Amino acid sequence: MRPNGCFGCGQDNPYGLQIESHWEGDEVVCQWTPKEYMIGPPNYLYGGISASLIDCHSVNTALSYAHKKVGNDDKYDRSIQMVTGSMNLRYIKPVPMREVELRATVEKVEGRKYFIKTELQSDGITCVRGDVVAIQLKAAQ
Amino acid sequence: MRPNGCFGCGQDNPYGLQIESHWEGDEVVCQWTPKEYMIGPPNYLYGGISASLIDCHSVNTALSYAHKKVGNDDKYDRSIQMVTGSMNLRYIKPVPMREVELRATVEKVEGRKYFIKTELQSDGITCVRGDVVAIQLKAAQ
Repeated sequence: MRPNGCFGCGQDNPYGLQIESHWEGDEVVCQWTPKEYMIGPPNYLYGGISASLIDCHSVNTALSYAHKKVGNDDKYDRSIQMVTGSMNLRYIKPVPMREVELRATVEKVEGRKYFIKTELQSDGITCVRGDVVAIQLKAAQ
Repeated sequence: MRPNGCFGCGQDNPYGLQIESHWEGDEVVCQWTPKEYMIGPPNYLYGGISASLIDCHSVNTALSYAHKKVGNDDKYDRSIQMVTGSMNLRYIKPVPMREVELRATVEKVEGRKYFIKTELQSDGITCVRGDVVAIQLKAAQ
């Protein structure tokens, strides 16, 4: 297994977010705690980090859903790859510098496009809402 | 001057983006080079970092425009504060791990809402487009 240095999900990137997402019923969920240097305004999480969390968690959700579709829940299939096509974010409340929870659902799938809705919550209160379109890459021939 | 630790613009945050934006005619421009750990897929910039750059650069643009409006180009006025209300991003091309340029314009201002259009370019090619609504906070009485 080669190192995964991705700033979002890379377990080999000590400065990154190292997010991990898992299914909980029909939702994909992630608990995550900020590092001190991920601050924006005093006491609050930097907005670009919220964007990063929503981006990665949504793409993870699409990726995992695509694996499920082909009946492959457990084994990682390298031929299934996603990129972010678009991301619409609404910042509702500032996010305190403590554990957050991400909750995502697959709204619909159209061809290679996966429409994902993700909420970033703090203490059960939704602070940021994201609509992400993840696009599955064509498998290499 | 207290330390500015913001992950986006904080000159006192060694792990952050440390972005700086300046006027060039009617546009606000920023050149920025990624650090190695800001990678996403191999050889390409992490999408959440592109989101962070567009977020910060757009808010910088709104902030600077608001200063100009009150005839205060040079002096930083702490009573003028902005937050990100919403951000819509379209990822058009992957962003190589080398210098990028951000170019932003103020599309319109409605009350306390500043509508900013920002492009992230690599070698003159637009890779990510962002529409950001920055909201000016009411000044403390």
